[in-house]
Amino acid sequence: MKPTAYDLLERVRQQKPVVHHLTNWVTIYDCAQVVKTVGASPVMAHAREEAAEMAQIASALVLNIGTLTVDFVEAMKLAARSANQKGIPVILDVCGAGATALRDRKCQELLNEVKINVIKGNASEVARVSGESVKTRGVDATEVGGDLVLLAQKLAEQRQATVVITGQVDIIADGRQTQLVKNGHPLMTHVVGTGCMAASVIGAFAAVESDLSLASACALACYEVAAELAAEKAAGPASFKEQLFDCLYNLDRKTVDRMQRIETSQR
Amino acid sequence: MKPTAYDLLERVRQQKPVVHHLTNWVTIYDCAQVVKTVGASPVMAHAREEAAEMAQIASALVLNIGTLTVDFVEAMKLAARSANQKGIPVILDVCGAGATALRDRKCQELLNEVKINVIKGNASEVARVSGESVKTRGVDATEVGGDLVLLAQKLAEQRQATVVITGQVDIIADGRQTQLVKNGHPLMTHVVGTGCMAASVIGAFAAVESDLSLASACALACYEVAAELAAEKAAGPASFKEQLFDCLYNLDRKTVDRMQRIETSQR
Amino acid sequence: MKPTAYDLLERVRQQKPVVHHLTNWVTIYDCAQVVKTVGASPVMAHAREEAAEMAQIASALVLNIGTLTVDFVEAMKLAARSANQKGIPVILDVCGAGATALRDRKCQELLNEVKINVIKGNASEVARVSGESVKTRGVDATEVGGDLVLLAQKLAEQRQATVVITGQVDIIADGRQTQLVKNGHPLMTHVVGTGCMAASVIGAFAAVESDLSLASACALACYEVAAELAAEKAAGPASFKEQLFDCLYNLDRKTVDRMQRIETSQR
Repeated sequence: MKPTAYDLLERVRQQKPVVHHLTNWVTIYDCAQVVKTVGASPVMAHAREEAAEMAQIASALVLNIGTLTVDFVEAMKLAARSANQKGIPVILDVCGAGATALRDRKCQELLNEVKINVIKGNASEVARVSGESVKTRGVDATEVGGDLVLLAQKLAEQRQATVVITGQVDIIADGRQTQLVKNGHPLMTHVVGTGCMAASVIGAFAAVESDLSLASACALACYEVAAELAAEKAAGPASFKEQLFDCLYNLDRKTVDRMQRIETSQR
Repeated sequence: MKPTAYDLLERVRQQKPVVHHLTNWVTIYDCAQVVKTVGASPVMAHAREEAAEMAQIASALVLNIGTLTVDFVEAMKLAARSANQKGIPVILDVCGAGATALRDRKCQELLNEVKINVIKGNASEVARVSGESVKTRGVDATEVGGDLVLLAQKLAEQRQATVVITGQVDIIADGRQTQLVKNGHPLMTHVVGTGCMAASVIGAFAAVESDLSLASACALACYEVAAELAAEKAAGPASFKEQLFDCLYNLDRKTVDRMQRIETSQR
Repeated sequence: MKPTAYDLLERVRQQKPVVHHLTNWVTIYDCAQVVKTVGASPVMAHAREEAAEMAQIASALVLNIGTLTVDFVEAMKLAARSANQKGIPVILDVCGAGATALRDRKCQELLNEVKINVIKGNASEVARVSGESVKTRGVDATEVGGDLVLLAQKLAEQRQATVVITGQVDIIADGRQTQLVKNGHPLMTHVVGTGCMAASVIGAFAAVESDLSLASACALACYEVAAELAAEKAAGPASFKEQLFDCLYNLDRKTVDRMQRIETSQR
């Protein structure tokens, strides 16, 4: 029988996997803290001389191009090749894809030169990575016409990867199945880094479950159940964020089982 | 009739302008979050290959030299030239000016090589940028003798810019008028980044109002009214900071109209 | 008579020493904020062109290799040589030592090429710096066999430095004496950056007290008394962290005198 969202959270808490990040300078603390909060062990290391070696002691690798530079992406490739060789999952947050030519080019380089196992972004970012001519507005999501589920499925097939589109309803697609996660809260869009943290939580869950589509859906469900609980106690974005960490830390089986809203459809 | 502080905040919330930053690594998260909290859309991008392009999708550009390097300042110049060309306001936070020769030199380069529309700092930083022989003590304000209003007015004329000196009373001067903002709370000096965040809020307001002196005064008034509200509920610097974001997010017209203390004098 | 932990905290609050950091990008904000919270003045500056000059206006220098690069360590050496020349204490947090060859090599370079006055890390990191063949797991502590007190004492003699091993019981050793600090709370291990912040607080105390062993023990006692107070009010890692800053800011003599648990033994 398939593990539940809480089963995987429990596995993270027990195994405490190391999750290596090469991420942006804006939300790097929150990415580390969210990984620690779900019970895993974050490590952030981007020097070219150690990125590959650090990946060897990790159980998952999270890349995020939010404040990319050319050199930084080269270090990402070294870390990703090392991760590929070790067989640990690589998650790419295509943060800000579509905002500039550099971001588009570097996304394609990463997707073409190393194996990315989970491609994660908001609707406009993932559309852009799929080759749609969407113009994004910095790093916040813009509206994308058309069928997002189909978009995710096509990119998943094209890239042989799990594709995660976050939004009011999250879409997780691989070649076999599509899952929707209907948890979350609008206050998340008022806090910088909730998207980046989602990728880090996916990294922690992917470190303990080889079905990356299942891992991604369960990660988002747990994270967003915590967000729903947090919103009940929040008076604004900062108290919401504090509550998000506290609630995520305190999640128990009964709450997650009752509140998680993952829907799966076979293709 | 001139818009009020709340009018401009409402405009930011409605237009959600993109505010591009090249800022320091210490407070980069808070700068992004404060921009989001007033309703605008922050983007942080410093790669030389994309800084200019990102400025083209923004409505304001905020530069902060807090953790400058030579390369980083070159990227700032690329972004600023692009902003100048597009005609969007460029705000420079002269963070730590006077602490080292590098900071002094790079401030002058920025002021001479690109058009800076708003020069912002504390008393000792702005005095230093004006050519006074003030020695600062790292990034915290030191006392400056003499007339700060006159100092601001002279620099404003010399640089054809709006000059903002933050402190217990904030001074905003351009060639036409001088404004004083008498809001704020001493707890702000116990939180790292309140100065950097002030520049970011000015960026958001400057993105929606072409009178940059008015935009700066209104931005500071809203931000510091929130600080006063936050201080009432705070037990120390960390709860104060959380409340600052929550209060800023929840500001309403009645509160801002009642509490804002902007004084204007024509020259 | 030897000053107490609170005596030194009071001295920090009165003298407001500048504490210069070259630290990691993950916890840089928290390092600055904790220094400010104890009453000192943080400055973060890593450009090669100014690192040495900034050290000249500081009263202590804190180095942390958490997100090191080769260039960054070169800037650390420039700052440290300047600090050595001025005679201010240099604290090195050997964050992540043992995780990669680069970290091991750069730790040794720093220890060999400049004078480090306080070497600080968790058990596995300090063991590794001592030449033990411990394999660490990223940046979180792993168990180390053997006598940690002896380990600290030997490294202290070998390097003519104060050695600080943080853990459930903190060990502070120099050539003359060994101190144990038995304050703290398990929630500290659930918050990213509590170790980095400990080094920064040590920096602030070392800036006002030339007995660096005493300064380190008093710094940890104050910081960890605040953690104990914070834990009483916390519902999870994020509220704990907020309370940690607030409690540290509000520490008074009576509380510190009553709760501090420093034990000293002459060798």
